Amino acid sequence: VNGREAARTYVEKHYREVLDEFVDLLKIPNIAANREDLWRNARVLLDMLAKRGVAAEILEAGGAPFVIGSLDAAQAEGTLLVYAHYDGQPVDPERWTGSHPFEPVLRDASLGDGGAVIPIPVVERPSGDWRLYARSASDDKAPIVAMLAALDALKAEDIPLAYNLRFIFEGEEEAGSPNLQEVLKQHGTKLAADAVLVADGPVFLTGEPTLYFGARGITTLEITVYGARNPLHSGHYGNWAPNPAMMLAKLLSSMKDSNGRVQVAGFYDGVVPLSPLERTYLERIPAVEAQLMEDLWIGQPETSARLVESINLPSLNVRGMNSGWVGDQARTIIPDSATASLDLRLVHGIDPTVQEERVINHIRQNGYRVVEEEPDATTRVESPKLALVMRGKGYPAYRSPVALPLCRRMVESMEGSFERVVVLPTLGGSVPLYLFHKVLGVDPIIGVPIVNPDNNQHSPNENLRLGNFFSGIEIFAVLFSAKNH
Amino acid sequence: VNGREAARTYVEKHYREVLDEFVDLLKIPNIAANREDLWRNARVLLDMLAKRGVAAEILEAGGAPFVIGSLDAAQAEGTLLVYAHYDGQPVDPERWTGSHPFEPVLRDASLGDGGAVIPIPVVERPSGDWRLYARSASDDKAPIVAMLAALDALKAEDIPLAYNLRFIFEGEEEAGSPNLQEVLKQHGTKLAADAVLVADGPVFLTGEPTLYFGARGITTLEITVYGARNPLHSGHYGNWAPNPAMMLAKLLSSMKDSNGRVQVAGFYDGVVPLSPLERTYLERIPAVEAQLMEDLWIGQPETSARLVESINLPSLNVRGMNSGWVGDQARTIIPDSATASLDLRLVHGIDPTVQEERVINHIRQNGYRVVEEEPDATTRVESPKLALVMRGKGYPAYRSPVALPLCRRMVESMEGSFERVVVLPTLGGSVPLYLFHKVLGVDPIIGVPIVNPDNNQHSPNENLRLGNFFSGIEIFAVLFSAKNH
Repeated sequence: VNGREAARTYVEKHYREVLDEFVDLLKIPNIAANREDLWRNARVLLDMLAKRGVAAEILEAGGAPFVIGSLDAAQAEGTLLVYAHYDGQPVDPERWTGSHPFEPVLRDASLGDGGAVIPIPVVERPSGDWRLYARSASDDKAPIVAMLAALDALKAEDIPLAYNLRFIFEGEEEAGSPNLQEVLKQHGTKLAADAVLVADGPVFLTGEPTLYFGARGITTLEITVYGARNPLHSGHYGNWAPNPAMMLAKLLSSMKDSNGRVQVAGFYDGVVPLSPLERTYLERIPAVEAQLMEDLWIGQPETSARLVESINLPSLNVRGMNSGWVGDQARTIIPDSATASLDLRLVHGIDPTVQEERVINHIRQNGYRVVEEEPDATTRVESPKLALVMRGKGYPAYRSPVALPLCRRMVESMEGSFERVVVLPTLGGSVPLYLFHKVLGVDPIIGVPIVNPDNNQHSPNENLRLGNFFSGIEIFAVLFSAKNH
Repeated sequence: VNGREAARTYVEKHYREVLDEFVDLLKIPNIAANREDLWRNARVLLDMLAKRGVAAEILEAGGAPFVIGSLDAAQAEGTLLVYAHYDGQPVDPERWTGSHPFEPVLRDASLGDGGAVIPIPVVERPSGDWRLYARSASDDKAPIVAMLAALDALKAEDIPLAYNLRFIFEGEEEAGSPNLQEVLKQHGTKLAADAVLVADGPVFLTGEPTLYFGARGITTLEITVYGARNPLHSGHYGNWAPNPAMMLAKLLSSMKDSNGRVQVAGFYDGVVPLSPLERTYLERIPAVEAQLMEDLWIGQPETSARLVESINLPSLNVRGMNSGWVGDQARTIIPDSATASLDLRLVHGIDPTVQEERVINHIRQNGYRVVEEEPDATTRVESPKLALVMRGKGYPAYRSPVALPLCRRMVESMEGSFERVVVLPTLGGSVPLYLFHKVLGVDPIIGVPIVNPDNNQHSPNENLRLGNFFSGIEIFAVLFSAKNH
């Protein structure tokens, strides 16, 4: 038997235990606001690792604890460091449908498809279309449970590990990983590896097994432009007093052309072009655009480029925009300010600060005086056009060279076990892959996502499609096991 | 003595009674939500009118009651119908500073200038800079109390009325005057007049006595443009999925040029130009722009035209704009929709529906399919660019010919009594003057505002500057009294 078969057999026999362990972990709330909850998660993870013979420990680094572990192979071809995170995004229980974020509920289909509740523990082999609803069901507890089940599956079939494994589970990824760098620095010896597997993010939109060798970085800018000191009566002042909503609309509008091409000077400068092998991988990915448009009710994409091409470019996204009031709250005023929040996704070769500066220069070129703190009355009176720009904390993209032997090896393992494998040079989402490379000096950094793309990550009704979960166990079993199995 | 002197003398002697009557009226809540409160107001107003010998009655018309009254002059030059409203905008008591909207508080200066509380009843002649804080202190109970005090003042000095007076006090102006038209129709005989005085709105920004002979109309449009069916992860879909915030920014941006000129085709068509006399009045109004810019922290107006010129043009104002989330709530998504709420102020000659259509046509010309109801999935998938446009209830502007004898007469009376009088062909704000003309066939409709422009109308901390209140009593005494007094 090979790794995939071992995983299948194991799930066939032990689906109930695997799900029970998963559900127990999901019941432990994992929101940054509650430190004690994060500690409870960490202690359970420590036990889960220990149960598999992994030498595990908890590291304190100022924030939520890190759980690390070490499991050596009898005959190792090398060492893999596997990263995942156990914390989740904040929850708004009232916006969840029919269940609570920390009281997992299993359904026989997605909520959108009218899924009915299935009691837990389950009494029959789950169908792949069943969904488990809970915070972090996908992001990012699923890979943790899946990779440990993969160890069980390999052990059950006496399939040896091909690599020594090192584990690092973080509890503050959703808070921007403030201590990850320091932990990697301080515990570099324990975490030393030939490659890092980052177990986070969804598989590609086709739902097929996916590897990614890079991820976009990200930074954010919040832009506020000003009108009068307070909202003004739109009748008495309208058409004379400046309208910051209109000013902001003009400013944002100037940032992109009608084909989605960013018009900020230098915005694409420094982008490292894709290599021929990376292009080959991209070209193998089936077209998803038509189906996506239908599924997502999209009448027209922003660009005529393919989605997977777009993802290899830096982006400028208006994630939020606010001024005055709309709907029932609307009142006939000229707003006193207007704010837009932008996220800038970065690709390999683009520095976060440089990209922020380009956008800030663009704002200046549009006639704005740019300040970085709330302006006072004098500044407002003296500046014909004034913008407050607040920079978020960003981090760069990273992309490993796909031609590295370990990259090719991983792709071959996957392609040897699955019908089709999607290889992404760059994941669209942002994962701080660069840190592992920067601090540990490791290359490649390989993304191993397993969850369904429609998992409602970061939103109410986060869910995991069980088919993806079981497939995830197979994926880890394949990647961890020796080539000839 | 003339009317102004009579009013001064009266206030000098009776300021305490006048203020007490005012404060008692302000203590009666007047929010649309509470019908019984509106009835309490109406009954008190009935008594207040009766006390002055006005034959008054309450009219029921389906909503809040109307209070009407009639007082004939011994030797009338004609009949004036005086309109005011006694209802107020909703209140948010928590946002009021140091007092409750329906527990009036007197201060020796504005809150902004650190005004200290002065006990009521007052024991000394109030200074003009004192302010009375309460809902409807300015909008619109002040003119009611002032015009009745003016009757008292004229009577005290035996100055005859120059006109028969008819009164109509409405209790649902802030709710859009749903029954005013019907009441005017049904009771046209009782309300018949040679001119209507509308006692609402603030005096011009210079604070000087003001008459207006027209007011802008208004209509509103709420525009929603669509992206995907729900917010999408900005990493996985960013740069490919359409961003409705950016689409809306482009659409709004196309509506005005950088000098504030509306670019919607035909937007200014049909505007009735100002007559030479109206131009003369405009030119007499002192420049307020530089002072306004300083007071309101405005770095640069939207237009280089004068404020009073701008007000005689139709306007397009983005009163609110919303998409996704900003600030602490920001999340890295591509919003699923973006909404802007526009108000369109109308001037004489522009029909509300026609103006709405022009904007809607502009949206179409920008490639949008326009729908008037929430679109379904099919509509969204089938429309490359899709906008939901909801029309508000609008009403037209009206402008009386300032050359009419009664207009000239009123301006002369005012100019004979006050150092400088501001005559506005059009008030910037919207008041349904057109209704009086349309239903009663009366011309002129004359606006007689008395309250301070910085009264926080419709907002927390609404207030009345007592100097304006006392001056308001003088204004009504002047307008009501015979020319030779």
